[in-house]
Amino acid sequence: YSRELALAEMLADTTRPVVMKHFREPLDIIAKDDASPVTIADREAEKAMRVLVGETFPDHGILGEEFGAHNMDADYVWVLDPIDGTKAFISGIPMFGTLISLCRAGKPVIGIIDMPALNERWIGCEGTPSTFNAKPINVRSCARLGDAWLYASSPHMFEGDDFPAFERVRKQARHALYGVDCYAYGMLANGAGDLVIEATMGIHDFCALVPVITGAGGFISDWQGQPLGLQSDGRVLAAGDQAMALKARELLNA
Amino acid sequence: YSRELALAEMLADTTRPVVMKHFREPLDIIAKDDASPVTIADREAEKAMRVLVGETFPDHGILGEEFGAHNMDADYVWVLDPIDGTKAFISGIPMFGTLISLCRAGKPVIGIIDMPALNERWIGCEGTPSTFNAKPINVRSCARLGDAWLYASSPHMFEGDDFPAFERVRKQARHALYGVDCYAYGMLANGAGDLVIEATMGIHDFCALVPVITGAGGFISDWQGQPLGLQSDGRVLAAGDQAMALKARELLNA
Repeated sequence: YSRELALAEMLADTTRPVVMKHFREPLDIIAKDDASPVTIADREAEKAMRVLVGETFPDHGILGEEFGAHNMDADYVWVLDPIDGTKAFISGIPMFGTLISLCRAGKPVIGIIDMPALNERWIGCEGTPSTFNAKPINVRSCARLGDAWLYASSPHMFEGDDFPAFERVRKQARHALYGVDCYAYGMLANGAGDLVIEATMGIHDFCALVPVITGAGGFISDWQGQPLGLQSDGRVLAAGDQAMALKARELLNA
Repeated sequence: YSRELALAEMLADTTRPVVMKHFREPLDIIAKDDASPVTIADREAEKAMRVLVGETFPDHGILGEEFGAHNMDADYVWVLDPIDGTKAFISGIPMFGTLISLCRAGKPVIGIIDMPALNERWIGCEGTPSTFNAKPINVRSCARLGDAWLYASSPHMFEGDDFPAFERVRKQARHALYGVDCYAYGMLANGAGDLVIEATMGIHDFCALVPVITGAGGFISDWQGQPLGLQSDGRVLAAGDQAMALKARELLNA
């Protein structure tokens, strides 16, 4: 995937200045249907990325958070989220990321988690070790839930029965940390966290995470243990240790 | 307070490299009584700060998170927390801060929120405008709770009746964000947030916040509206808008 990976990095490089231009500037905040705040930066960055993909791989499909789906029947589909962590971005908190993924036959094979305000980048690509700022990374082992550092964007992201399911795991974990969005998956890939459990995620929120976690030796799936891809339901479970993944899944589905 | 302020900045400058040396390095994590993780960095940094205070103002008192109280009967007492956000620090997340405060007669008159991994610094000093990276800052007005961006380190920090009290406010706020510890107060001072509500805070967790918030035009108190100081109970309410502070206090005590 060397040509595709080169484009993925170029997309991240292109997005950074567009996004940073608007960080901590007064913004027009437009309410979407789901009331999550959307910024001008989000739209400008996605537009720039879509042009680059179209120029480089005109046959590829594109699925973006802001401008929707194009050519989804293509074998290769780019999944783009210029600003993951919109609330952090709007609050002036540098923990937002840019998520860039390439799916082949519905399965993520390339993933980039880029942190424009922190100048940090995770890259995952099927068949190669994941990297953080160009250095190879590895998950850590942690088999006991009582030792686990657990992350989620927010306890309020879980709807209906998903909240008590999350709470079953959370109450047994050593620590629960909230609020860092995609960064939690990066830290897990770096061997600095043990579990991430989330729900109500969009496709653009999780596709990029898959190659990063997998290429660092970790495990990521939906809550049933099924691989994540274009057909997933938005529930995500990531673990550095397979025994931890199994234990968490068991509790989520208890 | 020019001499005291110069020392406060020197303490922050001294702490940065000590803390950063240990960030993302393998650490000996020592469990304290309350099971919160404590790092070598915390201790080294506090030791260095205590030496500097002792050399510059031998008559001043010192209260540090790690090494306790010294000469607390002094008119001036330095309150030091080398790493606020220990969980973030241990997780490799750059959102930890160094909190440095000078209290006079039990009341915080100087406060620094320093972010070693982000190279960002808030300074508050009684009688002068607060600054963020040396630029004057101001809170924003937001009188309606339904418009408010609310922050707390974690929903799990509230004990007993404090949790339902927090929830009464949280459910009426527009958004609730967790996980950024002292940064939330800085963002509120910058006019990028509206409310921070926390509890079970140590003296070293909140003293430095007071001059920063107050000098940016904001309001910070305990949940009863009493000024924060060495005698406070660990409940903290900060707001950019006085009407918001009153509304939140009303709900907290309903």
